[in-house]
Amino acid sequence: MTFARRLTAEALGTGLLVCTVVGSGIMAETLTEDVALALLGNTIPTGAILVVLIAIFGPLSGAHFNPAVSFAFALRRELPWSELGPYVVAQVAGGVLGTFAAHVMFDQAIVQTSLHVRTGGAQWFAEGVATFGLCAAIFGGLRYNKAAIPVLVGLYITAAYWFTASTSFANPAVAIARSFTDTFSGIRPVDLPGFILAELVGAAVAVALMGWLLATPRNEEARA
Amino acid sequence: MTFARRLTAEALGTGLLVCTVVGSGIMAETLTEDVALALLGNTIPTGAILVVLIAIFGPLSGAHFNPAVSFAFALRRELPWSELGPYVVAQVAGGVLGTFAAHVMFDQAIVQTSLHVRTGGAQWFAEGVATFGLCAAIFGGLRYNKAAIPVLVGLYITAAYWFTASTSFANPAVAIARSFTDTFSGIRPVDLPGFILAELVGAAVAVALMGWLLATPRNEEARA
Amino acid sequence: MTFARRLTAEALGTGLLVCTVVGSGIMAETLTEDVALALLGNTIPTGAILVVLIAIFGPLSGAHFNPAVSFAFALRRELPWSELGPYVVAQVAGGVLGTFAAHVMFDQAIVQTSLHVRTGGAQWFAEGVATFGLCAAIFGGLRYNKAAIPVLVGLYITAAYWFTASTSFANPAVAIARSFTDTFSGIRPVDLPGFILAELVGAAVAVALMGWLLATPRNEEARA
Amino acid sequence: MTFARRLTAEALGTGLLVCTVVGSGIMAETLTEDVALALLGNTIPTGAILVVLIAIFGPLSGAHFNPAVSFAFALRRELPWSELGPYVVAQVAGGVLGTFAAHVMFDQAIVQTSLHVRTGGAQWFAEGVATFGLCAAIFGGLRYNKAAIPVLVGLYITAAYWFTASTSFANPAVAIARSFTDTFSGIRPVDLPGFILAELVGAAVAVALMGWLLATPRNEEARA
Repeated sequence: MTFARRLTAEALGTGLLVCTVVGSGIMAETLTEDVALALLGNTIPTGAILVVLIAIFGPLSGAHFNPAVSFAFALRRELPWSELGPYVVAQVAGGVLGTFAAHVMFDQAIVQTSLHVRTGGAQWFAEGVATFGLCAAIFGGLRYNKAAIPVLVGLYITAAYWFTASTSFANPAVAIARSFTDTFSGIRPVDLPGFILAELVGAAVAVALMGWLLATPRNEEARA
Repeated sequence: MTFARRLTAEALGTGLLVCTVVGSGIMAETLTEDVALALLGNTIPTGAILVVLIAIFGPLSGAHFNPAVSFAFALRRELPWSELGPYVVAQVAGGVLGTFAAHVMFDQAIVQTSLHVRTGGAQWFAEGVATFGLCAAIFGGLRYNKAAIPVLVGLYITAAYWFTASTSFANPAVAIARSFTDTFSGIRPVDLPGFILAELVGAAVAVALMGWLLATPRNEEARA
Repeated sequence: MTFARRLTAEALGTGLLVCTVVGSGIMAETLTEDVALALLGNTIPTGAILVVLIAIFGPLSGAHFNPAVSFAFALRRELPWSELGPYVVAQVAGGVLGTFAAHVMFDQAIVQTSLHVRTGGAQWFAEGVATFGLCAAIFGGLRYNKAAIPVLVGLYITAAYWFTASTSFANPAVAIARSFTDTFSGIRPVDLPGFILAELVGAAVAVALMGWLLATPRNEEARA
Repeated sequence: MTFARRLTAEALGTGLLVCTVVGSGIMAETLTEDVALALLGNTIPTGAILVVLIAIFGPLSGAHFNPAVSFAFALRRELPWSELGPYVVAQVAGGVLGTFAAHVMFDQAIVQTSLHVRTGGAQWFAEGVATFGLCAAIFGGLRYNKAAIPVLVGLYITAAYWFTASTSFANPAVAIARSFTDTFSGIRPVDLPGFILAELVGAAVAVALMGWLLATPRNEEARA
């Protein structure tokens, strides 16, 4: 029962996140021809909703909403490997439904296929950096200030939309869901494997590097 | 005496909220021809004032400012049904006065009738999602982090302005008040029933679904 | 000695506040021809710096930076009337120096006289509402959540820049300082008395109305 | 070992900071021709990432990411003078690598030389004010509210991008790193000495003035 609620939280949270990413992208590109302004209209809602969703679902499911983050927690042995599969399924399913919901709200064809090309070494490096930074923000928050994690993630993604050339998907479930929309935030299905692999590598690097950086010194451990 | 103060808080808070929505809309559409920029100039002030108003009136009246939220609290038995009527009257009256105050500040006709068409299934679905999310943010905050509610609601509405096709009214009192302005943020009076019904449905769904998701497990209850 | 430090804090804080208002206005109007965008480039820095200045000077001087706020605290008997004069002098002097500093940074004539017309009943009403809301945010914060005051004031002014037709000066010292710049944020010296009077009235109304709304119930007082 | 981790944190943090400044500048100038909008697209990510980086690295290394700040802490005897050198080397090295990383992500020549002229008395005064304010925000946070420092610094830089004519570098390591990019955020290498000197002077003034302003009164000291 509790596990069903956790999976529902992951699906619902990922759904609302994707709905915000896709929906605000449609709203923005409809209202302006300035692409920087459209990106701002995509960035601010995404950062804002992340704070809300992580605050209200974090205590229940961890509020990963992201297979790369769940994978990282599995590597850190903070999520049982047996739960990784169900988590990823819930995230992807919720994310895709989120895209569909955005399309319904904006009176568009419910299922679309993106033609937006996002590929190449520079983009993959950007996705790796983006996901590394996301995991670093989460691990740092867990180490020093748990209550700040919703805000840290929201602000991190706000920044990463702009400083990574890929606008920081940093999330395989969101990437898959965004391949179902041929609007501002879409990505071609054929470009998904490169993005997802880069994201998983970024997450794994974060587990290793931040694990060393944020390790509890031995004497502190002894005291604890 | 305390009830009079609570109703005054609901009226004053809803009034300042509507004054911000309508006033910033007028300011924005006066200053730019880019509609995305105008929406940003409408979004940021609304999100900001919500944080302030909920922080300063929340401990007094609950800071609903919103009949759909009051209805949801009545469903949850956290607001006596007998108080729902007076709350709604105070919210609607305060909201309409807020529209009038914005008109006075911007030197416009005090009473106007909006011609802005907002109707159809896509818009109603958007309003339902918008109000569901608003209530989810509030219930999640109540469950895990009461002090964060003002910020959660402000950020949620910041996002919802952009990801819902209806720009997220999510509030029957604000919707009614906005029917009295023929400016950026208006809505035709004839379109009100569809919006209000969708909002109440969204609120009711949130009570049911979030009630299940955020239920206290039995063993925790026993310990408490 | 402590009083000298408090006055220095008021002067320095008001100076940095005005420097931000005037400087970001110059930066914004230099970089764009879209007035809404310029106002956004004026709003965001002002809201941000207010949070910082109130957080770092609040515990020292109260971080009023504003004769209308000092006047309100005197009415509430939380600032001795004998200190009101020195506070106002420090605020006005600091504010004017802030305008001069902005001019030096942007390589402009140090002393200017604004030609920006800001007058009439609608503007005065807007200034009254703006100052009422500012004081309401402060008094509400003091009553329920002192630590949140810097953020509440920063967000309030962020909203008020847009929803009040006057862009919310809400501060006689800042208004006087802004009469010394003939750039985006200026105000004609001859328009100052109307603004200042409206601000003081708004502050006084807030003292009365919020005093009643936020009064401690008798039984709570007895328990305290 | 702990010192190696602190230096790594300084290098990684400065690197991600510069990567954000340079990367968001490239993104912004690519997407729009409105310079104010580009500056906004540069400002918001920078302010956001600063909050994240200071929150996750602050408890480890102090999260200076800035030789002027490290210098100020050395003046205050809160950083051993012997550690200043290694800190500065880590910050500069990390910063330059951050510029390179941004170039890789955006598929640009990795090493560039900026042609962006930033010089003259007005700019130097602006840099001095910018760094004074940054240090004042940090010292004020340390005195009254340590947990708020990440947010205070993020918001301060958000404001300073706009109110200082130099867009507030306020950081010698970031300035050096930005001389390696011929994009939006660059600075000519020949203009570095003026900026760096102004920044160090601003930091020293802050140590002196804020030290006096925020001094613990004697009787409080006695009680502590």
